[in-house]
Amino acid sequence: MFDFKYFTPTKVLFGRGAETKAAEMIRAFGGTKVLVHYGKGSVIRSGLLQRVTNQLTEAGIPFVTLGGAVPNPRLSLVYEGIALCRKEGVDFLLAVGGGSAIDSAKAIGYGVANEGDVWDFYEGRRKPAACLPLGVILTLAATGSEMSDSSVITKEEGLVKRGCNTDLCRPKFALMNPELTMTVSAYQTACGCSDIMMHTMERYFTNGGNMEITDALAEGLLRTVMAKAEILAKNPADYDARAEVMWAGSLSHNGLTGCGSCGGDWMTHKLEHELGGLYDVAHGAGLTAIWGSWARYVYRDCLPRFRRFAVHVMGIAPDGTDEEIALRGIEALEAFFRRIGMPTSLRELGVSATDEDLRTMAHKCAVGVNGGRGSAKFLREEDMLAIFEASR
Amino acid sequence: MFDFKYFTPTKVLFGRGAETKAAEMIRAFGGTKVLVHYGKGSVIRSGLLQRVTNQLTEAGIPFVTLGGAVPNPRLSLVYEGIALCRKEGVDFLLAVGGGSAIDSAKAIGYGVANEGDVWDFYEGRRKPAACLPLGVILTLAATGSEMSDSSVITKEEGLVKRGCNTDLCRPKFALMNPELTMTVSAYQTACGCSDIMMHTMERYFTNGGNMEITDALAEGLLRTVMAKAEILAKNPADYDARAEVMWAGSLSHNGLTGCGSCGGDWMTHKLEHELGGLYDVAHGAGLTAIWGSWARYVYRDCLPRFRRFAVHVMGIAPDGTDEEIALRGIEALEAFFRRIGMPTSLRELGVSATDEDLRTMAHKCAVGVNGGRGSAKFLREEDMLAIFEASR
Repeated sequence: MFDFKYFTPTKVLFGRGAETKAAEMIRAFGGTKVLVHYGKGSVIRSGLLQRVTNQLTEAGIPFVTLGGAVPNPRLSLVYEGIALCRKEGVDFLLAVGGGSAIDSAKAIGYGVANEGDVWDFYEGRRKPAACLPLGVILTLAATGSEMSDSSVITKEEGLVKRGCNTDLCRPKFALMNPELTMTVSAYQTACGCSDIMMHTMERYFTNGGNMEITDALAEGLLRTVMAKAEILAKNPADYDARAEVMWAGSLSHNGLTGCGSCGGDWMTHKLEHELGGLYDVAHGAGLTAIWGSWARYVYRDCLPRFRRFAVHVMGIAPDGTDEEIALRGIEALEAFFRRIGMPTSLRELGVSATDEDLRTMAHKCAVGVNGGRGSAKFLREEDMLAIFEASR
Repeated sequence: MFDFKYFTPTKVLFGRGAETKAAEMIRAFGGTKVLVHYGKGSVIRSGLLQRVTNQLTEAGIPFVTLGGAVPNPRLSLVYEGIALCRKEGVDFLLAVGGGSAIDSAKAIGYGVANEGDVWDFYEGRRKPAACLPLGVILTLAATGSEMSDSSVITKEEGLVKRGCNTDLCRPKFALMNPELTMTVSAYQTACGCSDIMMHTMERYFTNGGNMEITDALAEGLLRTVMAKAEILAKNPADYDARAEVMWAGSLSHNGLTGCGSCGGDWMTHKLEHELGGLYDVAHGAGLTAIWGSWARYVYRDCLPRFRRFAVHVMGIAPDGTDEEIALRGIEALEAFFRRIGMPTSLRELGVSATDEDLRTMAHKCAVGVNGGRGSAKFLREEDMLAIFEASR
């Protein structure tokens, strides 16, 4: 068991109509001039954006808007947002959307509150000293960014995808109405469920240090998300299942499922960041495409955890050797991914990568983690390449 | 499933030496003059109080001290603390101890930050508008007050025990070193584990509205606490078991295990508050003494939850009628309480209550809940009396 810090200050209002509390919450947290930041068409088409801006207007809270946040949100839009906030004297950010809008808003918040190039924080050259306060109206259950300390941005030049994690960017509030996630496609819903699961699994598959209570919470969360993902694959309008997945998304990445562990493995995410940077695939699908190959490559070095996962999460009978049980757990999770329409290889992801592509991604990934990283198994560039090759 | 709010802003530092961060955290949260509030002898005897005051002195943070918080903390000491804070210009409270010191500090915080009699807030006559910020160095895993919104105070006149719940009193930080709980007696440890379990069970046994993920977290927490309580009954110095129970105590009462439910039943707590007020028994022991009688009185009206509890928490085989399974779950939990040395009746609690005592407690309890309360089953004064009678 490792010492840990736990800090989840985000005030969550969860349920039907939660988004109508935006103006009230912005006021409560001291916002006087707001940037409403959103993505592409869906929040416009659904009328949500209009309802939110009407709400701010009626409450007498001045605001400007900036749309255009895309999956794997771009640095250029972040720069645009920073300039707009400075010009307009914005002191509060309201992200309306999913992880893309939220991560982009967090980056804008860092940029406005600090001098110099915001990309420095994502490259790890400097640490931010502050972040503009932000709130969230969530429309997609996936990244957990609504309560997390993380923001991932892609720099167009070289398609470099990097994350910055500090408590400074944890949202002040998150308004979570499961109804707002109902229009999300079956594929995006499955991507979201996979991302949610991976946030807990990255923390679960580690060597050294764990807490029984954290394991119990993590395993309960994973079982719940799997059950609800299968329901949503058949009935996307099931409110209760949407709600379960939405709340699981927040709990999966706010720190709760990592308390007492070594901080997590995170190599599936790091490998996927390269996929997402190069091919612009959906994050959740990139994760499931790579996970099985990663798991088969590392499980012998983290056998007690893979065995436990197989029995406690996947319901595998504890018969046979630990290796056999662990492998059956990996196979069962891959079968689940396929059942909800997720890819378990690059081919199924729709990516036909050249050898050169794989080498490039492995090299960029290794550089991004200063040569190597991983707790289940420490991976260097050659390991990363082997996993990419196995994932074709 | 009900809409819910979730707000757990407390910054937790968990692990060996966490208490050495007190001065740093007080500064980070803006404290410039501190009241160090503690209980009776144990934090003095252990040297902890001296180490804390040395730390503040070395950091140049001025402070005053006030000891004397007792289990079922008293209103008179709260008044004393309020007067001391006003006289000394205290702007931050540091509670060193368990729930008694923390709840007492919260009450002092309400009293200093609002005009009028602080007891009004506990009687429900007014709502507090503010609370002095407070931090915690936790030495006893039990009440969860280190992250919770609740404070329970006993007024000596008439021995009236009442709670006040608002987000205003949630601690700014909690420093949690499991080593500091190791000197706690086996009996107090068992009392703490029982209190922790009851905080989750009060939220679990409800009619109408629940979330699968909340149930999964609650059941995982309960199973973990039970396993660790049995370890600690044999080996009180087991660091990992102490840590599991300590963290479970925070999670059990910070709101996590109630998300999506109707807000909880809480009648076991309300009944125990009368026991605690009249006989000054340990809170955890009072809860276990009353719980079985409460459960037998209400389980038919909340059968799906009692059945689920039996199977998912107590490991009862799902054979027989729902009533039979539910009853076996109740019996199994009572057997567990006895194994860790907890009472399951007033007699085992060491209380020989007269008929008049029972009638007095039932009446006071009914008045305290404005005539009736309860979600598993709505209880009126005659129900409360019947449960007290069955618990003898």
